[in-house]
Amino acid sequence: MKKKITVLPGDGIGPEVMKGALQVLEGVAARFGHEFQTTEKRFGGTAIDQDGKPLPDDTLETCKNSDAVLLGAVGGPKWDSQTVRPEQGLLALRKELNVFANLRPVTVFPGLENLSPLKSNRVKGADFVFVRELTGGIYFSEPKTRDEKHAVDTLSYTREEITRIIEKAYELARVRRKKVTSVDKANVLETSKLWREIVEETAKKYSDVETEHLLVDYAAMRMISSPSSFDVVVTENMFGDILSDEASVIPGSLGMMPSASISQKGPGLYEPIHGSAPDIAGSGKANPIGMILSTAMMLRHSFKLEKEAAAVELAVFETLQAGYRTQDIYDGTGNLVSTKEMVNQIHFRM
Amino acid sequence: MKKKITVLPGDGIGPEVMKGALQVLEGVAARFGHEFQTTEKRFGGTAIDQDGKPLPDDTLETCKNSDAVLLGAVGGPKWDSQTVRPEQGLLALRKELNVFANLRPVTVFPGLENLSPLKSNRVKGADFVFVRELTGGIYFSEPKTRDEKHAVDTLSYTREEITRIIEKAYELARVRRKKVTSVDKANVLETSKLWREIVEETAKKYSDVETEHLLVDYAAMRMISSPSSFDVVVTENMFGDILSDEASVIPGSLGMMPSASISQKGPGLYEPIHGSAPDIAGSGKANPIGMILSTAMMLRHSFKLEKEAAAVELAVFETLQAGYRTQDIYDGTGNLVSTKEMVNQIHFRM
Ligand SMILES: CC(C)[C@H](C(=O)O)[C@@H](O)C(=O)O
Ligand SMILES: CC(C)[C@H](C(=O)O)[C@@H](O)C(=O)O
Repeated sequence: MKKKITVLPGDGIGPEVMKGALQVLEGVAARFGHEFQTTEKRFGGTAIDQDGKPLPDDTLETCKNSDAVLLGAVGGPKWDSQTVRPEQGLLALRKELNVFANLRPVTVFPGLENLSPLKSNRVKGADFVFVRELTGGIYFSEPKTRDEKHAVDTLSYTREEITRIIEKAYELARVRRKKVTSVDKANVLETSKLWREIVEETAKKYSDVETEHLLVDYAAMRMISSPSSFDVVVTENMFGDILSDEASVIPGSLGMMPSASISQKGPGLYEPIHGSAPDIAGSGKANPIGMILSTAMMLRHSFKLEKEAAAVELAVFETLQAGYRTQDIYDGTGNLVSTKEMVNQIHFRM
Repeated sequence: MKKKITVLPGDGIGPEVMKGALQVLEGVAARFGHEFQTTEKRFGGTAIDQDGKPLPDDTLETCKNSDAVLLGAVGGPKWDSQTVRPEQGLLALRKELNVFANLRPVTVFPGLENLSPLKSNRVKGADFVFVRELTGGIYFSEPKTRDEKHAVDTLSYTREEITRIIEKAYELARVRRKKVTSVDKANVLETSKLWREIVEETAKKYSDVETEHLLVDYAAMRMISSPSSFDVVVTENMFGDILSDEASVIPGSLGMMPSASISQKGPGLYEPIHGSAPDIAGSGKANPIGMILSTAMMLRHSFKLEKEAAAVELAVFETLQAGYRTQDIYDGTGNLVSTKEMVNQIHFRM
């Protein structure tokens, strides 16, 4: 198989974790006989510095013309106080690529339960995935206005926007443990009432999948008190932003968590959920696993290379089992290694 | 001091925990020489059954003409599928009483750290309070519309609405540990940009108080990973709904958590954060502490009876120290007691 990948290393630790992921990807190509053609482009803070905007036209064009996009991380204190901010590039890229479904797995690795801020018996076996609507809702709806005295945001959703994300969740549940938890605030929001209606309709088409509705406030509680009660969690953009970040605390290391943002047919966008961590950039301390597992998600979701994706995941798992730890997941036992050494160990197990 | 209190026992365990709180309140009256005149009214599901609506006019009138309102709990599966729901009464009551500031303390009781789903060393000493905007934002703003194909909610805030809640947070921080954490989504929402502007302006007037801004997604993470880093957390209505419920998991028992909803000058509304728990209603298992501590908040915030409030809190604390436990906080050690016995123990220590 031959695929074109746009590579956006971004800011902070972005370039170093990206380098690691590309090394592992070369391992996949060699072992399974694929050809991955990568083109690197500027994005985020570095693009603001050099091109005056976070998403240069040329970068966007290249992304659109590729089969998938890998993104490291964007942002940093340097750009925090500027009017043009790296995140604007991210929001624009999502919208332009129409990647309406954001998938964020939350997995507690067996043997790494002790990293969690939660008691080990609570998190054991927790393994679920968020399906967050990513290109609609209050992030993008108009009107959005502000003056000295008054500000307005709008939360709007169409039936189509809701239907496609809900269907994505049910499709995913079918290849998992067959349970969908839909999160809304139907006791207050009109958009949530429409959302719940559409979930009910869709549920009928997927009668092999169990459906439950949770109010967002209760979901925020149960996420912590009973994380292993979830399989697929589907929700709108803003609730998904808050809950998926909340849930990312559960495994105890942000550094290992991947994400995928996919569209109906164009290229998907794959990025670790951690930030650009400028404080450790260049020090060899970054955990490359989040970026590597994002690459595995690309293989699975954009290229339908399930075997290859599973091979990468297995290599990561075995490397962790063998005791290799970057600093963020090191608790005094095991083998403390640099970003580079962690990548080598994973690559070696491919 | 002579005060008029409207009592809304509500549904499920509401009546039994209310009975307990009123017994403790009588203890306060006797010890400190006050007169609390209570008038009981129907509210919530029971009002739907008997009056056809959750907030009968007569109930609202009585609330408005009193010095404070005590509320047990509302709701239950019986009313879940009806068009008129108990929560509508709650939203209407908040709006009518103009209780724009919802205070929700999150306290991990010394010695009860083991109840938390979080590791004990994480939660030790956690003691913060939410100041949630309660009568504006996406809960109440217009337009709010829905048809088959499309739904819209509106999130709007005026400068006045934001200013009064922010000031409340700073006032509270002054009598606490002097730190305000303001939570918004200023990288996406116009209302959050206005919010942040007003926090910055207000912060200047309270230069003795430390200010920090957190994005809501990051706040949802830090709430769990580092709960003791907060003192006063101020945020808008919907974010406050989600985050305060998330945080309520930290102490490990919903049953002990109080809340206060206060206005500029009218009566405040005091209720435990737990629900009506219809499954245990009438069985003597309910924890009355959330309701009792809500009553203490009433003494403090509506009646300015600080000494009396502290006396109630101390009696609760000592009863817990003496090992008395209702079922929800019983872990095999200590003395398992009924609702009534827990109330007696607290009353006895007043
Ligand atoms: C950077 C920000 C706009 C973004 C969001 O809120 O979607 C981020 O928090 C995320 O979740 O990817
Ligand atoms: C019942 C519901 C409308 C209410 C809210 O969302 O405000 C509740 O969750 C709360 O927090 O008091």
